[in-house]
Formats: sequence, structure tokens, C-alpha cells
Amino acid sequence: MRVRYLGPAAVVMGGGAALVAGTGVAAAEDTVESLAGAIDIAWLLIAGILVLFMQAGFGLVESGFIRSKNVTNILMKNALDLSFGAIAYWAVGFGLAYGTTEFIDIRFFGGGSFFYGGEDADYAGFFFQFAFAATAATIVSGAVAERTKFAAYLVYTVVITAVIYPVVTHWAWGDGFLSAYASDIQFGDNGMIDFAGSTVVHSVGGWAALVGAIMVGARRGKFGPGGIVNALPGHSMPLGFLGVMILWIGWYGFNAGSTLGLSGGFADLAARVAVTTTLAAGASAVTAMVISRLRTGHSDLSLTLNGVLGGLVGITAGCATVEPWAAVVIGVVAGVIIVYGVELLYRFQIDDPVGAVPVHLFNGIWGTLAVGLFTTQANLAPNYADSASYGLLVGGGIDQFIYQVIGVVAVGAWTVVTSIIMFGIIKYTVGLRVDESEEESGLDVAEHAMEAYPEFTGGRDPFGPHFGAPALQTGAPIAGGAPMPPADAG
Amino acid sequence: MRVRYLGPAAVVMGGGAALVAGTGVAAAEDTVESLAGAIDIAWLLIAGILVLFMQAGFGLVESGFIRSKNVTNILMKNALDLSFGAIAYWAVGFGLAYGTTEFIDIRFFGGGSFFYGGEDADYAGFFFQFAFAATAATIVSGAVAERTKFAAYLVYTVVITAVIYPVVTHWAWGDGFLSAYASDIQFGDNGMIDFAGSTVVHSVGGWAALVGAIMVGARRGKFGPGGIVNALPGHSMPLGFLGVMILWIGWYGFNAGSTLGLSGGFADLAARVAVTTTLAAGASAVTAMVISRLRTGHSDLSLTLNGVLGGLVGITAGCATVEPWAAVVIGVVAGVIIVYGVELLYRFQIDDPVGAVPVHLFNGIWGTLAVGLFTTQANLAPNYADSASYGLLVGGGIDQFIYQVIGVVAVGAWTVVTSIIMFGIIKYTVGLRVDESEEESGLDVAEHAMEAYPEFTGGRDPFGPHFGAPALQTGAPIAGGAPMPPADAG
Amino acid sequence: MRVRYLGPAAVVMGGGAALVAGTGVAAAEDTVESLAGAIDIAWLLIAGILVLFMQAGFGLVESGFIRSKNVTNILMKNALDLSFGAIAYWAVGFGLAYGTTEFIDIRFFGGGSFFYGGEDADYAGFFFQFAFAATAATIVSGAVAERTKFAAYLVYTVVITAVIYPVVTHWAWGDGFLSAYASDIQFGDNGMIDFAGSTVVHSVGGWAALVGAIMVGARRGKFGPGGIVNALPGHSMPLGFLGVMILWIGWYGFNAGSTLGLSGGFADLAARVAVTTTLAAGASAVTAMVISRLRTGHSDLSLTLNGVLGGLVGITAGCATVEPWAAVVIGVVAGVIIVYGVELLYRFQIDDPVGAVPVHLFNGIWGTLAVGLFTTQANLAPNYADSASYGLLVGGGIDQFIYQVIGVVAVGAWTVVTSIIMFGIIKYTVGLRVDESEEESGLDVAEHAMEAYPEFTGGRDPFGPHFGAPALQTGAPIAGGAPMPPADAG
Repeated sequence: MRVRYLGPAAVVMGGGAALVAGTGVAAAEDTVESLAGAIDIAWLLIAGILVLFMQAGFGLVESGFIRSKNVTNILMKNALDLSFGAIAYWAVGFGLAYGTTEFIDIRFFGGGSFFYGGEDADYAGFFFQFAFAATAATIVSGAVAERTKFAAYLVYTVVITAVIYPVVTHWAWGDGFLSAYASDIQFGDNGMIDFAGSTVVHSVGGWAALVGAIMVGARRGKFGPGGIVNALPGHSMPLGFLGVMILWIGWYGFNAGSTLGLSGGFADLAARVAVTTTLAAGASAVTAMVISRLRTGHSDLSLTLNGVLGGLVGITAGCATVEPWAAVVIGVVAGVIIVYGVELLYRFQIDDPVGAVPVHLFNGIWGTLAVGLFTTQANLAPNYADSASYGLLVGGGIDQFIYQVIGVVAVGAWTVVTSIIMFGIIKYTVGLRVDESEEESGLDVAEHAMEAYPEFTGGRDPFGPHFGAPALQTGAPIAGGAPMPPADAG
Repeated sequence: MRVRYLGPAAVVMGGGAALVAGTGVAAAEDTVESLAGAIDIAWLLIAGILVLFMQAGFGLVESGFIRSKNVTNILMKNALDLSFGAIAYWAVGFGLAYGTTEFIDIRFFGGGSFFYGGEDADYAGFFFQFAFAATAATIVSGAVAERTKFAAYLVYTVVITAVIYPVVTHWAWGDGFLSAYASDIQFGDNGMIDFAGSTVVHSVGGWAALVGAIMVGARRGKFGPGGIVNALPGHSMPLGFLGVMILWIGWYGFNAGSTLGLSGGFADLAARVAVTTTLAAGASAVTAMVISRLRTGHSDLSLTLNGVLGGLVGITAGCATVEPWAAVVIGVVAGVIIVYGVELLYRFQIDDPVGAVPVHLFNGIWGTLAVGLFTTQANLAPNYADSASYGLLVGGGIDQFIYQVIGVVAVGAWTVVTSIIMFGIIKYTVGLRVDESEEESGLDVAEHAMEAYPEFTGGRDPFGPHFGAPALQTGAPIAGGAPMPPADAG
Repeated sequence: MRVRYLGPAAVVMGGGAALVAGTGVAAAEDTVESLAGAIDIAWLLIAGILVLFMQAGFGLVESGFIRSKNVTNILMKNALDLSFGAIAYWAVGFGLAYGTTEFIDIRFFGGGSFFYGGEDADYAGFFFQFAFAATAATIVSGAVAERTKFAAYLVYTVVITAVIYPVVTHWAWGDGFLSAYASDIQFGDNGMIDFAGSTVVHSVGGWAALVGAIMVGARRGKFGPGGIVNALPGHSMPLGFLGVMILWIGWYGFNAGSTLGLSGGFADLAARVAVTTTLAAGASAVTAMVISRLRTGHSDLSLTLNGVLGGLVGITAGCATVEPWAAVVIGVVAGVIIVYGVELLYRFQIDDPVGAVPVHLFNGIWGTLAVGLFTTQANLAPNYADSASYGLLVGGGIDQFIYQVIGVVAVGAWTVVTSIIMFGIIKYTVGLRVDESEEESGLDVAEHAMEAYPEFTGGRDPFGPHFGAPALQTGAPIAGGAPMPPADAG
């Protein structure tokens, strides 16, 4: 029995004596093995917490980069994709990803372990995997911001968290056909190497974001006649900055946490991952800034911030297997992709308000391919020690690059097809897009009857003032069964 | 002697060799026991840091959910309850909670260890316990926001941190009469199970908040004639969102950190706690959103965010002893409590601007009682291995539920009585409430001569513009003894 | 070969069994030594992440304490000093600080290890040291805010990160002449004790900030005729508050992380550091608030927040070697320094918009000297076990105090001279200050063509509206080679 605290005299004085209450049962005896397990679990928990913190980062970036009349809506979506996601992944998603079952042997999805729990459960593993699932789902909301129905969002976030993403993780990180771990079945002598999920997480979110942005259509006023592209400036740069900084920090949990532990020599690997992650983010931000300055004469903050994110996505697949110098190269290319990726979307009149597609999809693909270019033979151990193939540009031949291409294509095909089906069904049932007047007045009032900044805004929106009569300021008598009065905040 | 860094050649290369400088004294030799102690201390420190981060979360939630004219004031209160709290808890509080002494044997409060320090001090334990104390104190500020004197706030935050909260922790987590650990003296064969403090921390803050909100009275204009309840909308939803996300993240320190370490098999427990915590938060948020939508036709962001917090408070007592499915049930009920709790306060014309009472008090009670319903026998170990009683709804009989009720009542009685005395004394000495004109113009200018957003606001406040003449824009010559000029920021 | 996740059946169940895939190579066997190494690396990584998170804190504090028309600019600078810094420190800085080389034996700077990487690299150490370097560089941006050219900023942030700061770390923490570790060469029987960098990090940033603020000159309108000091109020107190809270949290990584590990008995030291850090921050904030109230009749939020930071800087040098009571004393003095430090700058008409000089320089010096006053003999171990001298006020004589003075003077001289040269060269090449019209209209539009809050601001700025025609709202046709349209956000 562990005492909560029985006074200073009874507690550990740093020497490591087990905490044992007078009448209690002694805690389990520690051994090197049990301590190794404790360290690994601690790492999974800490990394999982950092990854969940990224949800705050996504919410802030998406808020800061859109107009204030839709901020309550985007915050709501971010709070709820995490909340719905927790239930959906616990009930269904985790089982599809990692559940084992007798009757499924097609390496396509798992089975069992639904409504995860019980004495044998690996809760640290579940917690970490859930945090990743939440990331994949939240990527979409930014790309379809400012015009998508709230109900539609809730449906697709559950589908992605419960089905689309878990199946991909099963393929690449579970017992599936893309796995670099299940060496008896995959193509060649190795599978796709995607250490922390450039493809498995980010491009899944990115493909769904692209399909969503196309199917929902551009915001009113974004594209004008004759190829005009209008800026609809984000309403708060500090929110964008803070969001990106939180994401940068959280990414250490994402990438370095993907060692899944620190014992058995993996601590060194985690440290190298932290360094490659840092260098790629920095190099990409610098590159995006420089290019934006060269092309427009101004150093663009939003491109620089997305440069950070693009570098982070780009290094996610290869963070464990490339050298620092290669991380810098990957980051430089990622920064280029960010700037020109935005322009590419404009050419096709695809409206992605926060840049989710260049960040997560284009750089997710780049990062996955870069593994096949820069992975060194020495860095294959400890994680991919069985592999015989490595980076094309460092003497490893073409094989690993081909595996990476196969992985990108397979995951892309799955995600695009399932996303089209999903958004199509939503379109013809609950509906995908708010009507014109709701878009005009903003989703905050239309869907949530709550302005994000009731005291601040008023008139600089390019499409005119977006608030109606002061309907929110009135109350109503409370009586049994009467509608609730508008809440302040609780 | 540990070198700071003596160049790459001298440092650990991941193999774990001790860092020893050429001429220095070797560090202590590591053993399994000493490493177990190091891991436990690391966990306490990391968890304590996460819990302290919750202070930022509370400050942001309270800021976001009130009007901009009182934001500087609420930020000041949040910065200072942590600062005053650190000194007060170090000087007095910790000793009352966990100090041991010869002459006190009534199991009511501790003695000794004041002005904590010295060679035998358990600093990791102190740090973690302080972080909890700061949480209990900060809960109150939101409930009495927008009309409470700054000086009054400083007094009561010190009293709560130094006296009211520490006594409760002594009862339940120290050597006290409610403790599930001090098995020789408590009622029955077990005490109240409150793993991380639904009652010990949150309901203490919640009861004080309720007493404070009643004694300070409602904000001007909140309640109109004929039972009208006016909304006084919070000024910034992004601050509310970010605050809640930080609290969510910090709660993993709060709950999973309450294992007090990871050695001796406790790492597994910490992982299960992380999962139950996540599920309860998600289920509660979803429930609060759905009910708000059913009742008003709109999905309410502030209720959803408070739903997250309500679920977190609700799972805090039972996070270590209930199964994941029960965490979902606890969360669903917590979400219901949030929505109807707000309405209940309205019926009694109690004005709690941020919803602190439904979140921390109502769900603190619910969470504590839920332990008596859902705790499974298997989950009693390792923390409550001596206990013979467990959850009523999973076959454990009524005993544990009764213990939980006793704990709730005892802590409630203590906190309500001491809070009434405390707020009463404040009322008749420094005064509890600002005068009408100060409330009208806002506490920022009246108490701090500093607007939170001098460039943004101007006119959409329901009670009219709240800024006077541009008094803040002028300066004064500096001369010896002359009043300082208004600071920009430093 | 470590599996990513091969289904629940294969994973660790908390008992610490190594994760081994069916066909893979086993991970390295764990020993007490290897686990000690893993724990140390984990601590460096976690602490490094916390220190990097401080970058978000600096960005927010600086943003909140300046006017909205320069916010995009300051965010840009903060994002880029981290990004450029990563590349610069990796390429050059780390090698100057800790690189070993045959031909340099003057204890002045290191050599080698440029473009850090390779199989023998200590990545955890590099990561932690880089996070510190980024801190030193970012301090400057606040002091020269609202009038410094963006290009000038990029140049000096690189110089500080790559050269000025690394040389100082070599002196004090590497193999240099100030080092308390390199006992064969330093003056006396010990060197300067600066555990986490009051001098090495904060005063380096602070000296550069002071030189920069003087050479750039005050903002237009800050100082009027006859000694008038005008307030130019910061635009957002919540950003300032959140920034400070993030810095407070991050400082645990900074100070407690400077144990560089937890094995070998260092976990206890880390815990004590966390406690002294907390107490100094609290005591300083309380003191600054009380003095501001006594002097002006108002409790000043910005001084209170800077009080927190001043206390943190003040305890940074001595956090490992002073007792808790001394931490409180150090904090009280730090709070006094903050209030009067601002006034001192005003007397010399030095304009430091965010208070960086009182926080980082004045308290950096105070904290370094305080080590010579309060360090106890008992607390010399484990880090400074060789030292024979300790605090003047606790019976240790004058020697250690003198060492501290020497360190302060040496580092100050180096930083001032190099900063003058650096800013001088910048002034006569790319230029240091924007022109008057750009300062008037704000650096956001002039340098970045992007307002931080396009929807919020409009007219309460003391120098009049700062936006021109709606030039940002228009777009341009996209064609090959045409300038990019203004980006929304991606």
C-alpha cells in the first residue's frame, strides 16, 4: 500500500527506498527489468501528453489564421475532435489498429480489443496511440474552416479516428502488409520506414483535408474572376505563433516518443531524433521566410510559421534514420514546398485557409520519400536492424525508395477513396456546407450563438460587419422546462 | 563533482557511465534502489511542473470567460495566488498538512516542518504538494470575478493555501481521520478513497468559491427583475479554449502524478490513470455539448469546455480504481451535472461567472461518490490493498460508498464554516466588494490603472464604454521621490 | 528490432520485458549503468523541451508588452531566432563552446565539433545546450522592439548564438578560465559558481539588450521634454501573463535540468532546485507588487509579472547551492531590483519596452553575486564538492564572492565589447533602425505587409491610427513568375 503522504519522516529521502506504510502491503520489489519497464512507460506517458498538447496548438493555429467570425466554431471543432475521438478510438479504433484475432489474416486491419480495458491492457501504449489518432483527425478542420457544417465535422472526425486512420496504422505499424516490422510478409526484405508518421499520420490527415477542401468548395470571396486570389487575412497572429510553438514542442513527443521507450539503448535514439527534428524545423522556417521575401519583398509570418510545421512533418518519417546534415536538407526542401505548395493550390482554386495541405500532405509525402534518400546504413539499427536497404543518396540503392513510394501510394489511395465516400455520404445526408447567409454572418453566431470576441470586433472584415442585432445580450426567465438562458461561461 | 560540460569527449555517450571530472569527486554509485528513487523523484517533479502549468490554464479560462474590463485584475490574482501561495505554503501550509509533532495526536492537523528546508527535506514531495495547494486556492478567483476587491482576494488566497486546504490534506492524505492509509484509526476498515483529490482539492476550492460567490453577491446586471438572467458574455473564447486545453494536459500531472512515483509497479497504475482521465474528459465534453444542443438548439462552447473540466474533476477521485468503461460513465454524468449545475445556481441567483462551482464542487462531490460506486476489487491494489470494501455497483457493497459520503460531508462542513468566517472577517475589515462605480468602470482601471487591451476595446460592453479620460497616456517627470511614471511593461 | 506496435499481445505489460519482435534482433540488454544513462538522457531531453518552450513564453511576453502595430514583427523575430539559432548553433556555436581541439589551449574558446553529428555525438547534451543558446539570443528582441530593422535582428541573433554566447559558456561551463569544474587552471581553488546561468545566459542576453537599446535609441514619443516619460502601454495583458507563466514552467527545465541528469544522487539536487526556484519567483513577484502599490497606489501587473521573471533570473545561479530561506531573500531583492531598475533606465532615457534589462541583466548580476553570499557549505556537494569557499553571509568568507565578481565583470566586458562592435557594424551596413514613417505606421505593415489583428485595431493608439489604405485586402492574378498573392495563412 502506497501512502499518499504520511509526513516527511516516512517518505523517500531520495535514496530510493520503497514507500511502505506501517500496516500496508509492500510494493513490488524493483529489479533492473521492472525499472526498465517503468522508464519505458514514463516515456510513453510523457510523450503522449506532449502529443495531446499539440491539440491546443492545432486549435490555436487554425483560430489565428481564420477570421474572427468563425473562431468559436473552430475552437468547438478542436475541443470535440479530441473528445469524440477519445471515445471512438477507445471503442473501435484501437481494436482495428492493433487488436489481434483468429479469423483475420489478411494484414488489412486488426480485430478485437474493442472498448479497451481489463487487467492485461497496455494502457501506456493505448494512451500514446490515441494521442496520435487525435492528431490525424484534427488536421482536417483547418482545411475546411469557415464554411463547413458543425454536424458534418463531428461525423467525419469520428470516421477518421475510428476507421480510416486505424487501418493505416495497422498496415504500417501493426501486423500489416506495409510494416517494416512484420518481416515475414511484406514486400522485399523490408517495408516502408515511417518512424513517426509522415505518411501514417500526417498524409492521412492531409489527404482527407484535400478531399474535404475540394468537396466543400472555396470560401465565398476567396477566388474572384480572372484568376484573382483574395487574401482573407487571419485575425490573430499571436494565436498562430503560439499554436506553432506548442506544435513544435509537442513534436518532440511525437517523434522522440516514437522510440516507445528508453531502455535497451533507445535513449540515444530518442536524443538523436530530438536533434534532427529541431534542425529540420529551423531550416524549413528559414527557407520559407527567405523565399517569401525574395518573391514578395516582405518576410511573411504565416509562411514562416507554416515553414516550421512543414519541416516538422518532413522530418517525421526519417527523424530516426537520417544524420543531422540530412535533416537540414530535408528542412530546406520542406520550406520550398510550403511556399510553392500554397501557390499550387491557388492555381487549382483549392481553398485551404490554414495551409494544412502543403504542411501535412505535401511534406508528409516528401518526408516519406526522403527516408529512401537519406537513411544511412548505420542508423538502421536499432529500429530497422533487419533491413538491408537504405538511402539512395548515401549508397543504399533504389530499393528503400521504392518501398517508400509504395507506402505513399497505398495510403493515399485508401485515404482518398474512403474520404470521398465519407464526405459524399455526409453531403447527401446531414449536409457538408452551411448556407450563404450563415457563411456571411459567420459560423459562430449561426451554429453556436456565441461570438468569440463580443467586445472587440466590428467592421474591418472585408465582407462587412458580421454581427446582427444584439440577440446574445438578452436573457430569458428561468422556469421549468424553459430554454436555458444564454450562458456566460459555465 | 558533476561537470557542467567539459566537451564532448567527457560526456556520457548514452551508455550510462557516470559523469566524473578529472579531478572531481565521483558521484554516488547507482544501484537498483537509488535508480528507483531517481525515477520516483523525476515523476514527482514532472507531474508537479504539469500541475503548476494548470495555473496558466486557470488564469486563461477565467480571463476568457469574463469581460475585458476586468481582465488585468483576474490575471493579477492568478499570478499572485501562485506567488503568495508559494510563500504561505512553505512557511505554514506544508507543516500543517504533513508536519509531524509529538504533542498533536488528534489526527486533525500536522505540526512542525514550517519554513520547510534543511538537509533531510523531501523537496520533491514538497514541490508536488505545493502545486496541489496552489490549485485549490486558484479555483475561487473565477467564481468571485469582476466585483471582488483585490486586497480581499490576497487575504483569502493566503488563508486557503496556508490553513484551510492543508488541514483537509492532513485528514485525507496525511495521518488524519479520513485517511485510507492510516488504517489504525479511521472509520471501518478503510477511509475515504480520493486518489488525486476530487474532494480534497476540488471540492475545497469549490465550497470556498460557492461561499464567496454568495457572500460577494452577483455582478450588477446579471439578474434582472422577474427572474431574468442576463448573459454577460466572456470576452475571448480562444483564451477559454487554450486554458481548458492546458488544464486537460496538466491534469495528467495531477492524476497520474498522484501515484507519487513509478517504481514498485506503480508505472502501470499511472498509465491506467492517464487513460481513465482521458475518457472521462471526452465523455463529459460530448455529453455537455449534446445536452446544450438539445436544450437550446445551439452547441455551446463554454458548456463544452466546462464539460471537459467537469469530467476531469469527476474522474480525479476514482482515476486509479475504476475501469475505462466506468470512466466513460462518470464522464457522462459529469457532463449532465455541468449543464444543470449552471441552471441550479441561476435558480438561486448565485452568480459564478466562470462556472467554478459546477466544475469543481458539484463534480468534486460526484467524483468522490463515484468511487464508492465503480471501484473494482482488482483495482484496489496497489494503492488500497488493505481495503476490504469497494464499489457498490460492481459487487462491493455499501460500505465504501458510506465512507465517501462521510468524507464529502466532513470536508464540506470544514470548508464552508472556515470560509464563512474568513469572508466575514474580510468583509468587515478590508472589505469584500468594490464599489459600484469601480465595478462599472472595471477593476482594471480602478485597482490597477492598466487596461488589458488598451487598443482593442471600445463600446460593445453591455453596460457602456468603460474607459475614462486618457489618464493612462500621460507621464510625469521623474525626480527623487516623485511617483513613478506609468510603466509600459517593465 | 523494436516493433512500432505488433498488437497488444506482444507489448510490454509494465513488467519491463524488452520489446522484441518475432524475427527481429533483440535490443541491448539493460543494466543498472545503462538505465542510469537512459534516465539522465530522459532528463536532458525533457528539460531541453521545457527550455525550448520558453521561446513561446518570450514571444508572448514581448508581444503583449508592446503595441499591436509591431506584433507581427516581434513574433517573426521570435520564430526566427529559434530557427536561425538552430542552424547557427549546430554549425558553429556548439563547437566554439564545447569542441575539443589540439591547437587551442588558451581556455578562451573551443574548437571542432562543427556541424555536429556522427556516431559518437552526444545528442542529448547538444539538444540541451542548444536550448540554452536560444534563450540567450531571444532576450535581446524585447529591449529593441518596435523600432529595429528585421534584417538587423537576423544578423545579431546569429552572431549571439554562434559566437558571443558560446564563448562565454566555454569560459564558465566548458574547459575555460572561469570554470568551477576545470580546477587545474582557474583562479583560486574554485571558479565562478553559476549553476544554471544567471551570468552565462541571462546577463549575456541582458548586456546585449542594454547595448542594443542604447544604440538603437528610444522609441519615438517615449521620452518628452523636461524629463517626461510617456507610457506606451502594452497591447495585451493576457499574452504577457501567459508568456510569464510559460517561462515560469520552462524555468524548471532550465534550472532543475542543469543537474544534467538524475542518476548518481542528482535527483535530490534537482528537487531542491525546483523548490528554490519556486520560492524566489513567488517572493520576487510579491515584492514587486507591494512596492509598486506603495509607490503608485496601484498594484501593477507588468511589474508583478516582471517580478516573477526577475526572481527566476536571480535564483538561476544559486538554485543548487542555497537554502530555501535564502531563495526567498534572493527573490525579495530581485523584486526590488525590478521596480527600481525600470526607474534607473528611465533616468538615463534608455527605452526597454519589455523590461529585459532589469529582468535579465540587473537580476543576472544580482543572482550571480548572491551565490557568493548564500551558498552553504553543505550544498556545495555534489556539484562543487572540490570547492573550499562558499557564502559570505553563511560563514564562508569573501573568496567565493570575489570569484563571482570576477565572473560578472569578465562576461560583462566580453559581451559589451562584442555587442558594440556587432551593432556598430550592423548600423553602418544593413542599418539598425527603421525610418520614421515605418515606425509610425508600425513594423508589421512596413516589414511584413501583415497586420497582427486586421479586424480588431483602429484608433486608440496614442500616435493615431496606424493603418493605411486596405492594400492588404487586394489580390493579384496568378501567372508564371507573377508575385504571389498575399497569403491568408499558408
